Amino acid sequence: MTEPPQVTGVYETVLYGSDVSALARFYVSVAGLRLIELAPDGLFAACRIPDGGVLLLFDPALSSPPGRSVPSHGTSGSGHVAFRVRDGELQSWMEHLAACELEIERFVEWGGGLASVYVRDPAGNSVEFVDGEIWE
Amino acid sequence: MTEPPQVTGVYETVLYGSDVSALARFYVSVAGLRLIELAPDGLFAACRIPDGGVLLLFDPALSSPPGRSVPSHGTSGSGHVAFRVRDGELQSWMEHLAACELEIERFVEWGGGLASVYVRDPAGNSVEFVDGEIWE
Repeated sequence: MTEPPQVTGVYETVLYGSDVSALARFYVSVAGLRLIELAPDGLFAACRIPDGGVLLLFDPALSSPPGRSVPSHGTSGSGHVAFRVRDGELQSWMEHLAACELEIERFVEWGGGLASVYVRDPAGNSVEFVDGEIWE
Repeated sequence: MTEPPQVTGVYETVLYGSDVSALARFYVSVAGLRLIELAPDGLFAACRIPDGGVLLLFDPALSSPPGRSVPSHGTSGSGHVAFRVRDGELQSWMEHLAACELEIERFVEWGGGLASVYVRDPAGNSVEFVDGEIWE
């Protein structure tokens, strides 16, 4: 082992679902991300996150098989992602999610004014919006 | 639908594996993240990313069952994450990964000086280190 160089952050966060178009619509219209690419074959969609990162949405039936030009990957089941919201804007998010006719699965107050709201994307992934710093 | 408020970034990126201690060791010693919490019951580990985000590592056998205090989630199969590295440091990463005795699954040059190196974590998740901006 050597001392690792330092990563600066997460560049690509990945979620999976069989209908990447539906997932892309969700992350654009609900989470406000910017669609930067939608593969015509349904393999993936890429959405830009305001901090410069990318949310990738893959169909695991297409991304899992071996022999791709990049390493294969793909999961089944419900993944999870949490987005940061601006300070004090969680109530606006609650109203927006309601206007999107999404069921609020949970609303959690962590103490100290921190709070999270959870919904599900069309593939059943758990999507959290967080106001504040939950972890130490 | 209403115009969404703006998220500022991804706060929690999540990967899964049956041995979260082994995953945590990997992300600390190989990726250089800082361990901030390791649940004694093996449910999860949380690692701080230098940009302020958190990488969460969950055992899906423990995080999937319904009835948790927070929404359940959990996947099987190989997930994927990509970390940004500092400009020009990918060669240092290659040397570090070799010193960690990890197999380099792929090295991809995207053109324009951009490049990625891919390894696997102990759960088989595809872990990419990226120098440069791949997406438009």
